[in-house]
Amino acid sequence: VNQLLYDGKAKSLYFIDGKDDEVLQAFKDSITAFNNPKPYIFEGKGVVTCQISSHVFKFLERNGIKTHLISSNDSATQVVQKLDILKIEITVRNYAFGNILKRSHFIKGEKLSEPLIEFMYKEDKFGDPLISEDYVLKYLLNNNEELFKEIKKLSFRINELLIEFFKAIDITLGDFKIEVGLNKDKELILADEISGDTCRLRDNLNNLLPLDKDLLREDIGNVLDGYKEILRRIKIKYSDL
Amino acid sequence: VNQLLYDGKAKSLYFIDGKDDEVLQAFKDSITAFNNPKPYIFEGKGVVTCQISSHVFKFLERNGIKTHLISSNDSATQVVQKLDILKIEITVRNYAFGNILKRSHFIKGEKLSEPLIEFMYKEDKFGDPLISEDYVLKYLLNNNEELFKEIKKLSFRINELLIEFFKAIDITLGDFKIEVGLNKDKELILADEISGDTCRLRDNLNNLLPLDKDLLREDIGNVLDGYKEILRRIKIKYSDL
Repeated sequence: VNQLLYDGKAKSLYFIDGKDDEVLQAFKDSITAFNNPKPYIFEGKGVVTCQISSHVFKFLERNGIKTHLISSNDSATQVVQKLDILKIEITVRNYAFGNILKRSHFIKGEKLSEPLIEFMYKEDKFGDPLISEDYVLKYLLNNNEELFKEIKKLSFRINELLIEFFKAIDITLGDFKIEVGLNKDKELILADEISGDTCRLRDNLNNLLPLDKDLLREDIGNVLDGYKEILRRIKIKYSDL
Repeated sequence: VNQLLYDGKAKSLYFIDGKDDEVLQAFKDSITAFNNPKPYIFEGKGVVTCQISSHVFKFLERNGIKTHLISSNDSATQVVQKLDILKIEITVRNYAFGNILKRSHFIKGEKLSEPLIEFMYKEDKFGDPLISEDYVLKYLLNNNEELFKEIKKLSFRINELLIEFFKAIDITLGDFKIEVGLNKDKELILADEISGDTCRLRDNLNNLLPLDKDLLREDIGNVLDGYKEILRRIKIKYSDL
Protein backbone atom coordinates (compact mmCIF):
# COMPACT_ATOMS: atom_id res chain seq x y z
CA VAL A 1 0.00 0.00 0.00
CA ASN A 2 1.41 3.36 -0.98
CA GLN A 3 1.55 6.13 1.55
CA LEU A 4 -0.73 9.10 0.93
CA LEU A 5 1.07 12.32 -0.01
CA TYR A 6 -1.90 14.55 -0.82
CA ASP A 7 -5.65 14.01 -0.79
CA GLY A 8 -7.55 16.37 -3.10
CA LYS A 9 -11.16 16.65 -4.11
CA ALA A 10 -10.86 14.79 -7.41
CA LYS A 11 -7.47 13.09 -7.09
CA SER A 12 -4.99 11.75 -4.56
CA LEU A 13 -1.24 11.52 -4.75
CA TYR A 14 0.69 8.59 -3.25
CA PHE A 15 4.39 8.01 -2.63
CA ILE A 16 6.07 5.24 -4.61
CA ASP A 17 8.49 3.14 -2.54
CA GLY A 18 12.07 3.73 -3.51
CA LYS A 19 11.30 6.70 -5.77
CA ASP A 20 11.96 10.27 -4.73
CA ASP A 21 10.93 12.04 -7.93
CA GLU A 22 7.82 10.10 -8.91
CA VAL A 23 4.35 9.77 -7.38
CA LEU A 24 1.13 7.97 -8.20
CA GLN A 25 -1.78 10.21 -9.20
CA ALA A 26 -5.09 8.44 -8.57
CA PHE A 27 -8.27 9.87 -10.12
CA LYS A 28 -11.37 9.62 -7.94
CA ASP A 29 -14.96 8.86 -8.91
CA SER A 30 -16.09 11.90 -6.93
CA ILE A 31 -16.94 15.25 -8.46
CA THR A 32 -17.80 18.49 -6.69
CA ALA A 33 -20.11 21.20 -7.97
CA PHE A 34 -22.19 24.16 -6.78
CA ASN A 35 -19.59 24.90 -4.08
CA ASN A 36 -21.13 21.92 -2.34
CA PRO A 37 -18.59 20.39 0.04
CA LYS A 38 -20.19 16.97 -0.42
CA PRO A 39 -19.04 15.38 -3.68
CA TYR A 40 -21.22 13.44 -6.12
CA ILE A 41 -20.00 9.93 -6.98
CA PHE A 42 -20.08 8.58 -10.53
CA GLU A 43 -18.72 5.06 -10.51
CA GLY A 44 -16.02 4.69 -13.15
CA LYS A 45 -15.47 8.44 -13.60
CA GLY A 46 -11.89 8.26 -12.30
CA VAL A 47 -10.87 5.75 -14.96
CA VAL A 48 -12.40 7.89 -17.71
CA THR A 49 -10.91 11.23 -16.61
CA CYS A 50 -7.53 9.56 -16.06
CA GLN A 51 -7.53 8.17 -19.59
CA ILE A 52 -8.72 11.46 -21.13
CA SER A 53 -5.99 13.33 -19.28
CA SER A 54 -3.32 10.77 -20.22
CA HIS A 55 -4.15 11.12 -23.91
CA VAL A 56 -4.22 14.92 -23.72
CA PHE A 57 -0.90 15.08 -21.86
CA LYS A 58 0.74 12.69 -24.36
CA PHE A 59 -0.51 14.89 -27.22
CA LEU A 60 0.92 17.96 -25.51
CA GLU A 61 4.26 16.21 -24.87
CA ARG A 62 4.43 15.28 -28.55
CA ASN A 63 4.02 18.98 -29.29
CA GLY A 64 6.81 20.16 -27.06
CA ILE A 65 5.03 20.80 -23.74
CA LYS A 66 6.72 19.46 -20.63
CA THR A 67 4.16 17.59 -18.51
CA HIS A 68 4.37 15.64 -15.29
CA LEU A 69 3.08 12.43 -16.92
CA ILE A 70 5.56 9.55 -16.85
CA SER A 71 3.38 6.55 -17.58
CA SER A 72 -0.25 5.49 -17.70
CA ASN A 73 -2.38 2.48 -18.48
CA ASP A 74 -6.13 1.95 -18.68
CA SER A 75 -6.65 2.32 -14.93
CA ALA A 76 -7.51 5.38 -12.84
CA THR A 77 -3.87 5.86 -11.84
CA GLN A 78 -0.87 7.47 -13.54
CA VAL A 79 2.78 7.74 -12.59
CA VAL A 80 3.76 11.42 -12.60
CA GLN A 81 6.74 13.56 -11.64
CA LYS A 82 6.82 14.84 -8.09
CA LEU A 83 6.74 18.64 -8.34
CA ASP A 84 6.55 21.71 -6.20
CA ILE A 85 3.07 22.76 -7.28
CA LEU A 86 2.59 26.53 -7.50
CA LYS A 87 -0.31 27.89 -5.47
CA ILE A 88 -2.10 29.21 -8.57
CA GLU A 89 -4.74 27.85 -10.87
CA ILE A 90 -4.60 29.20 -14.41
CA THR A 91 -7.73 29.57 -16.52
CA VAL A 92 -7.66 30.32 -20.24
CA ARG A 93 -10.97 31.20 -21.86
CA ASN A 94 -11.98 31.18 -25.53
CA TYR A 95 -15.71 31.46 -24.88
CA ALA A 96 -17.58 33.17 -22.04
CA PHE A 97 -18.96 30.61 -19.59
CA GLY A 98 -19.10 30.39 -15.81
CA ASN A 99 -17.92 32.97 -13.32
CA ILE A 100 -16.39 35.33 -15.91
CA LEU A 101 -20.01 36.31 -16.63
CA LYS A 102 -20.15 37.97 -13.19
CA ARG A 103 -17.15 40.19 -13.89
CA SER A 104 -17.22 41.17 -17.55
CA HIS A 105 -19.37 42.55 -20.32
CA PHE A 106 -19.49 39.14 -22.03
CA ILE A 107 -22.73 37.38 -22.86
CA LYS A 108 -23.01 33.69 -21.97
CA GLY A 109 -21.47 31.55 -24.70
CA GLU A 110 -19.95 34.50 -26.54
CA LYS A 111 -16.76 33.76 -28.47
CA LEU A 112 -13.99 36.02 -27.16
CA SER A 113 -12.12 38.02 -29.78
CA GLU A 114 -8.91 37.07 -27.95
CA PRO A 115 -8.21 34.30 -25.42
CA LEU A 116 -8.25 35.52 -21.84
CA ILE A 117 -5.99 34.34 -19.01
CA GLU A 118 -6.94 34.50 -15.34
CA PHE A 119 -5.13 33.45 -12.17
CA MET A 120 -6.81 31.94 -9.16
CA TYR A 121 -5.43 31.37 -5.67
CA LYS A 122 -5.21 27.59 -5.17
CA GLU A 123 -6.67 27.51 -1.69
CA ASP A 124 -9.75 25.41 -1.01
CA LYS A 125 -10.80 27.33 2.08
CA PHE A 126 -11.31 30.42 -0.11
CA GLY A 127 -12.87 28.52 -3.04
CA ASP A 128 -9.99 29.21 -5.45
CA PRO A 129 -10.81 32.92 -5.97
CA LEU A 130 -9.56 35.15 -8.77
CA ILE A 131 -6.44 37.06 -7.74
CA SER A 132 -4.57 39.99 -9.18
CA GLU A 133 -1.48 39.42 -11.30
CA ASP A 134 0.40 41.66 -8.91
CA TYR A 135 -0.37 39.27 -6.04
CA VAL A 136 0.73 36.32 -8.18
CA LEU A 137 4.02 37.96 -9.08
CA LYS A 138 4.95 39.53 -5.76
CA TYR A 139 3.57 37.04 -3.28
CA LEU A 140 3.25 33.67 -5.03
CA LEU A 141 6.16 33.79 -7.50
CA ASN A 142 8.66 35.67 -5.34
CA ASN A 143 8.92 38.47 -7.92
CA ASN A 144 10.20 36.07 -10.58
CA GLU A 145 9.06 37.96 -13.68
CA GLU A 146 10.72 35.52 -16.07
CA LEU A 147 8.81 32.62 -14.55
CA PHE A 148 5.55 34.58 -14.73
CA LYS A 149 6.12 35.33 -18.43
CA GLU A 150 6.92 31.68 -19.04
CA ILE A 151 3.72 30.59 -17.27
CA LYS A 152 1.61 32.90 -19.45
CA LYS A 153 3.36 31.81 -22.65
CA LEU A 154 2.98 28.13 -21.71
CA SER A 155 -0.73 28.59 -20.93
CA PHE A 156 -1.52 30.26 -24.25
CA ARG A 157 0.52 27.64 -26.14
CA ILE A 158 -1.39 24.86 -24.38
CA ASN A 159 -4.60 26.64 -25.36
CA GLU A 160 -3.61 26.60 -29.04
CA LEU A 161 -2.76 22.92 -28.88
CA LEU A 162 -5.91 21.97 -27.00
CA ILE A 163 -8.11 23.85 -29.46
CA GLU A 164 -6.48 21.82 -32.26
CA PHE A 165 -6.69 18.56 -30.29
CA PHE A 166 -10.40 18.89 -29.61
CA LYS A 167 -11.35 20.42 -32.95
CA ALA A 168 -10.17 17.24 -34.65
CA ILE A 169 -12.80 15.30 -32.70
CA ASP A 170 -15.58 17.83 -33.32
CA ILE A 171 -15.36 19.44 -29.91
CA THR A 172 -15.08 23.17 -29.18
CA LEU A 173 -12.84 24.17 -26.28
CA GLY A 174 -14.67 26.79 -24.23
CA ASP A 175 -12.11 27.18 -21.46
CA PHE A 176 -9.81 25.14 -19.26
CA LYS A 177 -7.97 25.25 -15.96
CA ILE A 178 -4.45 24.01 -15.41
CA GLU A 179 -1.94 23.77 -12.61
CA VAL A 180 1.82 23.92 -12.97
CA GLY A 181 4.81 23.09 -10.84
CA LEU A 182 8.57 23.14 -10.75
CA ASN A 183 10.67 19.98 -10.80
CA LYS A 184 13.95 19.57 -8.93
CA ASP A 185 15.75 21.28 -11.85
CA LYS A 186 13.36 24.27 -11.46
CA GLU A 187 11.79 23.54 -14.85
CA LEU A 188 8.18 24.62 -15.34
CA ILE A 189 6.02 21.53 -15.80
CA LEU A 190 2.31 21.07 -16.57
CA ALA A 191 0.72 19.16 -13.68
CA ASP A 192 -2.70 18.06 -12.41
CA GLU A 193 -5.11 16.96 -15.17
CA ILE A 194 -6.92 18.09 -18.31
CA SER A 195 -10.32 16.42 -18.66
CA GLY A 196 -14.04 17.06 -18.62
CA ASP A 197 -13.61 18.01 -14.96
CA THR A 198 -11.33 20.93 -15.84
CA CYS A 199 -12.44 22.05 -19.33
CA ARG A 200 -15.59 23.30 -20.97
CA LEU A 201 -15.98 21.06 -24.03
CA ARG A 202 -18.90 21.60 -26.39
CA ASP A 203 -20.13 19.07 -28.94
CA ASN A 204 -19.94 20.44 -32.49
CA LEU A 205 -22.07 17.47 -33.61
CA ASN A 206 -24.87 18.24 -31.15
CA ASN A 207 -25.70 21.94 -31.02
CA LEU A 208 -22.65 22.77 -28.93
CA LEU A 209 -24.17 21.09 -25.90
CA PRO A 210 -21.71 20.35 -23.07
CA LEU A 211 -19.78 17.08 -22.80
CA ASP A 212 -18.10 18.41 -19.65
CA LYS A 213 -18.80 19.09 -15.98
CA ASP A 214 -21.43 21.67 -16.97
CA LEU A 215 -23.73 18.66 -17.53
CA LEU A 216 -23.73 18.36 -13.74
CA ARG A 217 -23.39 22.08 -12.92
CA GLU A 218 -26.38 22.93 -15.08
CA ASP A 219 -28.16 19.62 -14.42
CA ILE A 220 -28.76 18.94 -18.12
CA GLY A 221 -27.45 15.41 -18.57
CA ASN A 222 -25.33 12.56 -17.25
CA VAL A 223 -21.84 13.90 -16.79
CA LEU A 224 -20.20 10.45 -17.03
CA ASP A 225 -21.87 9.83 -20.40
CA GLY A 226 -20.36 13.10 -21.62
CA TYR A 227 -16.89 12.13 -20.44
CA LYS A 228 -17.22 8.68 -22.04
CA GLU A 229 -18.13 10.28 -25.36
CA ILE A 230 -15.03 12.52 -25.17
CA LEU A 231 -12.85 9.47 -24.47
CA ARG A 232 -14.51 7.43 -27.24
CA ARG A 233 -13.67 10.08 -29.84
CA ILE A 234 -10.14 10.53 -28.50
CA LYS A 235 -9.44 6.80 -28.72
CA ILE A 236 -10.60 6.68 -32.35
CA LYS A 237 -8.75 9.78 -33.51
CA TYR A 238 -5.65 9.49 -31.37
CA SER A 239 -5.14 5.71 -31.34
CA ASP A 240 -1.41 6.34 -31.73
CA LEU A 241 -1.12 8.17 -28.39
CA VAL B 1 -30.09 74.75 -12.71
CA ASN B 2 -27.40 72.59 -14.25
CA GLN B 3 -28.36 69.56 -16.25
CA LEU B 4 -27.45 66.19 -14.78
CA LEU B 5 -24.72 64.30 -16.66
CA TYR B 6 -24.19 61.34 -14.32
CA ASP B 7 -25.76 60.30 -11.04
CA GLY B 8 -23.54 58.04 -8.92
CA LYS B 9 -23.84 56.59 -5.45
CA ALA B 10 -21.69 59.18 -3.69
CA LYS B 11 -21.45 61.95 -6.29
CA SER B 12 -23.26 63.50 -9.24
CA LEU B 13 -21.86 65.26 -12.27
CA TYR B 14 -23.61 68.25 -13.86
CA PHE B 15 -23.07 70.07 -17.14
CA ILE B 16 -21.92 73.70 -16.94
CA ASP B 17 -23.65 76.03 -19.42
CA GLY B 18 -21.33 77.18 -22.16
CA LYS B 19 -18.50 74.81 -21.16
CA ASP B 20 -17.72 71.67 -23.12
CA ASP B 21 -14.68 70.50 -21.18
CA GLU B 22 -15.72 71.21 -17.59
CA VAL B 23 -18.36 69.72 -15.31
CA LEU B 24 -19.53 70.20 -11.74
CA GLN B 25 -18.82 67.32 -9.36
CA ALA B 26 -21.23 67.39 -6.43
CA PHE B 27 -20.48 65.25 -3.36
CA LYS B 28 -23.51 63.67 -1.72
CA ASP B 29 -24.27 63.14 1.95
CA SER B 30 -25.11 59.52 1.22
CA ILE B 31 -22.76 56.61 1.82
CA THR B 32 -23.26 52.97 0.89
CA ALA B 33 -21.91 49.97 2.78
CA PHE B 34 -22.45 46.24 3.26
CA ASN B 35 -23.51 45.93 -0.41
CA ASN B 36 -26.72 47.51 0.84
CA PRO B 37 -28.45 49.27 -2.07
CA LYS B 38 -30.01 51.76 0.33
CA PRO B 39 -27.50 54.44 1.31
CA TYR B 40 -27.00 55.89 4.78
CA ILE B 41 -27.25 59.68 5.05
CA PHE B 42 -24.83 61.76 7.12
CA GLU B 43 -25.77 65.41 6.84
CA GLY B 44 -22.74 67.46 5.88
CA LYS B 45 -20.66 64.48 4.72
CA GLY B 46 -20.57 65.78 1.12
CA VAL B 47 -18.97 69.06 2.15
CA VAL B 48 -16.32 67.23 4.19
CA THR B 49 -15.38 64.62 1.58
CA CYS B 50 -15.33 67.32 -1.11
CA GLN B 51 -12.90 69.41 0.90
CA ILE B 52 -10.70 66.43 1.81
CA SER B 53 -10.55 65.41 -1.83
CA SER B 54 -9.84 68.97 -3.00
CA HIS B 55 -6.87 69.25 -0.64
CA VAL B 56 -5.53 65.84 -1.64
CA PHE B 57 -5.86 66.59 -5.34
CA LYS B 58 -4.13 69.95 -4.96
CA PHE B 59 -1.28 68.23 -3.10
CA LEU B 60 -0.98 65.67 -5.89
CA GLU B 61 -1.05 68.40 -8.57
CA ARG B 62 1.74 70.22 -6.75
CA ASN B 63 3.72 66.98 -6.97
CA GLY B 64 3.29 66.49 -10.67
CA ILE B 65 0.13 64.38 -10.90
CA LYS B 66 -2.46 65.45 -13.48
CA THR B 67 -5.88 65.53 -11.85
CA HIS B 68 -9.33 66.53 -13.06
CA LEU B 69 -9.68 69.24 -10.38
CA ILE B 70 -10.03 72.76 -11.79
CA SER B 71 -11.40 74.73 -8.85
CA SER B 72 -13.01 74.23 -5.48
CA ASN B 73 -14.32 76.23 -2.55
CA ASP B 74 -15.70 75.24 0.83
CA SER B 75 -18.89 73.76 -0.59
CA ALA B 76 -19.72 70.19 -1.61
CA THR B 77 -19.09 70.98 -5.27
CA GLN B 78 -15.95 71.17 -7.41
CA VAL B 79 -15.34 72.17 -11.00
CA VAL B 80 -13.52 69.32 -12.76
CA GLN B 81 -12.41 68.40 -16.26
CA LYS B 82 -14.85 66.40 -18.32
CA LEU B 83 -13.15 63.09 -19.07
CA ASP B 84 -13.78 59.77 -20.70
CA ILE B 85 -13.67 57.71 -17.51
CA LEU B 86 -12.15 54.26 -17.95
CA LYS B 87 -14.34 51.40 -16.78
CA ILE B 88 -11.82 50.30 -14.15
CA GLU B 89 -11.35 51.00 -10.49
CA ILE B 90 -7.79 50.75 -9.28
CA THR B 91 -6.96 49.70 -5.73
CA VAL B 92 -3.49 50.01 -4.21
CA ARG B 93 -2.93 48.32 -0.87
CA ASN B 94 -0.20 48.86 1.73
CA TYR B 95 -1.95 46.94 4.49
CA ALA B 96 -4.32 43.97 4.31
CA PHE B 97 -7.89 45.07 4.95
CA GLY B 98 -11.22 44.25 3.34
CA ASN B 99 -11.88 41.83 0.52
CA ILE B 100 -8.20 41.00 -0.12
CA LEU B 101 -8.49 38.87 3.02
CA LYS B 102 -10.77 36.49 1.11
CA ARG B 103 -8.23 35.90 -1.64
CA SER B 104 -4.76 35.93 -0.13
CA HIS B 105 -2.64 34.55 2.68
CA PHE B 106 -2.60 37.95 4.43
CA ILE B 107 -3.76 38.41 8.00
CA LYS B 108 -6.09 41.34 8.75
CA GLY B 109 -4.11 44.53 9.27
CA GLU B 110 -0.82 42.99 8.11
CA LYS B 111 1.64 45.40 6.49
CA LEU B 112 2.41 44.20 2.98
CA SER B 113 6.08 43.84 2.13
CA GLU B 114 5.30 45.52 -1.22
CA PRO B 115 2.30 47.59 -2.29
CA LEU B 116 -0.25 45.58 -4.26
CA ILE B 117 -2.31 46.82 -7.20
CA GLU B 118 -5.69 45.38 -8.19
CA PHE B 119 -8.15 46.23 -10.94
CA MET B 120 -11.90 46.13 -10.56
CA TYR B 121 -14.58 46.32 -13.24
CA LYS B 122 -16.44 49.61 -12.71
CA GLU B 123 -19.93 48.22 -13.09
CA ASP B 124 -22.43 48.69 -10.28
CA LYS B 125 -24.64 45.80 -11.34
CA PHE B 126 -21.74 43.41 -10.64
CA GLY B 127 -20.56 45.21 -7.48
CA ASP B 128 -17.22 46.34 -8.96
CA PRO B 129 -15.60 42.87 -8.93
CA LEU B 130 -11.90 42.11 -9.22
CA ILE B 131 -10.91 41.42 -12.82
CA SER B 132 -7.84 39.95 -14.47
CA GLU B 133 -5.19 42.23 -15.93
CA ASP B 134 -5.64 40.42 -19.22
CA TYR B 135 -9.31 41.49 -19.30
CA VAL B 136 -8.31 45.07 -18.49
CA LEU B 137 -5.73 45.18 -21.26
CA LYS B 138 -7.58 43.34 -24.02
CA TYR B 139 -11.16 44.35 -23.39
CA LEU B 140 -11.15 47.64 -21.45
CA LEU B 141 -7.98 49.32 -22.76
CA ASN B 142 -8.17 48.14 -26.37
CA ASN B 143 -4.77 46.41 -26.07
CA ASN B 144 -3.03 49.71 -25.32
CA GLU B 145 -0.05 48.35 -23.37
CA GLU B 146 1.57 51.78 -23.04
CA LEU B 147 -1.55 53.18 -21.40
CA PHE B 148 -1.76 50.19 -19.05
CA LYS B 149 1.87 50.69 -17.98
CA GLU B 150 1.19 54.38 -17.46
CA ILE B 151 -1.86 53.60 -15.30
CA LYS B 152 0.15 51.27 -13.07
CA LYS B 153 3.04 53.73 -12.77
CA LEU B 154 0.63 56.58 -11.95
CA SER B 155 -1.15 54.50 -9.31
CA PHE B 156 2.05 53.53 -7.49
CA ARG B 157 3.31 57.13 -7.67
CA ILE B 158 0.04 58.38 -6.19
CA ASN B 159 0.44 55.77 -3.46
CA GLU B 160 3.89 57.13 -2.55
CA LEU B 161 2.57 60.68 -2.42
CA LEU B 162 -0.53 59.77 -0.40
CA ILE B 163 1.54 57.85 2.14
CA GLU B 164 3.64 61.01 2.59
CA PHE B 165 0.60 63.31 2.66
CA PHE B 166 -1.15 61.35 5.39
CA LYS B 167 1.97 60.45 7.39
CA ALA B 168 2.52 64.18 8.00
CA ILE B 169 -0.84 64.33 9.77
CA ASP B 170 -0.28 61.14 11.77
CA ILE B 171 -2.43 58.95 9.57
CA THR B 172 -1.43 55.58 8.06
CA LEU B 173 -2.69 54.88 4.56
CA GLY B 174 -4.01 51.30 4.47
CA ASP B 175 -5.28 51.29 0.91
CA PHE B 176 -7.15 53.46 -1.58
CA LYS B 177 -9.25 53.27 -4.70
CA ILE B 178 -8.96 55.64 -7.64
CA GLU B 179 -10.54 56.16 -11.01
CA VAL B 180 -8.86 57.61 -14.06
CA GLY B 181 -9.94 59.02 -17.39
CA LEU B 182 -8.67 60.46 -20.63
CA ASN B 183 -9.14 64.11 -21.58
CA LYS B 184 -9.71 65.32 -25.14
CA ASP B 185 -5.93 65.27 -25.69
CA LYS B 186 -5.91 61.58 -24.60
CA GLU B 187 -3.90 62.45 -21.49
CA LEU B 188 -4.32 60.16 -18.49
CA ILE B 189 -5.94 62.14 -15.66
CA LEU B 190 -6.77 61.23 -12.07
CA ALA B 191 -10.56 61.57 -11.61
CA ASP B 192 -13.27 60.83 -9.04
CA GLU B 193 -12.24 61.54 -5.43
CA ILE B 194 -9.78 60.59 -2.69
CA SER B 195 -11.33 60.79 0.76
CA GLY B 196 -12.44 58.73 3.73
CA ASP B 197 -15.00 57.14 1.40
CA THR B 198 -12.28 55.70 -0.85
CA CYS B 199 -9.27 55.16 1.45
CA ARG B 200 -8.49 53.20 4.57
CA LEU B 201 -6.96 55.79 6.92
CA ARG B 202 -5.76 54.73 10.37
CA ASP B 203 -5.06 57.11 13.23
CA ASN B 204 -1.47 56.89 14.42
CA LEU B 205 -2.49 58.93 17.47
CA ASN B 206 -5.24 56.51 18.49
CA ASN B 207 -4.15 52.89 18.23
CA LEU B 208 -4.48 52.85 14.44
CA LEU B 209 -8.26 52.96 14.71
CA PRO B 210 -10.07 53.88 11.49
CA LEU B 211 -10.92 57.45 10.54
CA ASP B 212 -12.47 56.16 7.31
CA LYS B 213 -15.52 54.37 6.00
CA ASP B 214 -14.60 51.28 8.03
CA LEU B 215 -16.14 53.16 11.00
CA LEU B 216 -19.45 52.48 9.27
CA ARG B 217 -18.53 49.14 7.66
CA GLU B 218 -17.43 47.73 11.02
CA ASP B 219 -19.93 49.76 13.05
CA ILE B 220 -17.31 51.05 15.46
CA GLY B 221 -17.88 54.79 15.44
CA ASN B 222 -19.40 57.82 13.74
CA VAL B 223 -18.02 57.93 10.25
CA LEU B 224 -18.62 61.67 9.83
CA ASP B 225 -16.62 62.41 12.98
CA GLY B 226 -13.73 60.46 11.48
CA TYR B 227 -13.90 62.41 8.23
CA LYS B 228 -14.06 65.71 10.12
CA GLU B 229 -10.93 64.75 12.05
CA ILE B 230 -9.09 63.98 8.79
CA LEU B 231 -10.14 67.36 7.38
CA ARG B 232 -9.20 69.20 10.60
CA ARG B 233 -5.66 67.84 10.46
CA ILE B 234 -5.36 68.53 6.73
CA LYS B 235 -6.42 72.16 7.17
CA ILE B 236 -3.82 72.72 9.89
CA LYS B 237 -0.94 71.00 8.13
CA TYR B 238 -1.77 71.99 4.56
CA SER B 239 -3.12 75.51 5.05
CA ASP B 240 -1.26 76.56 1.93
CA LEU B 241 -3.21 74.19 -0.35
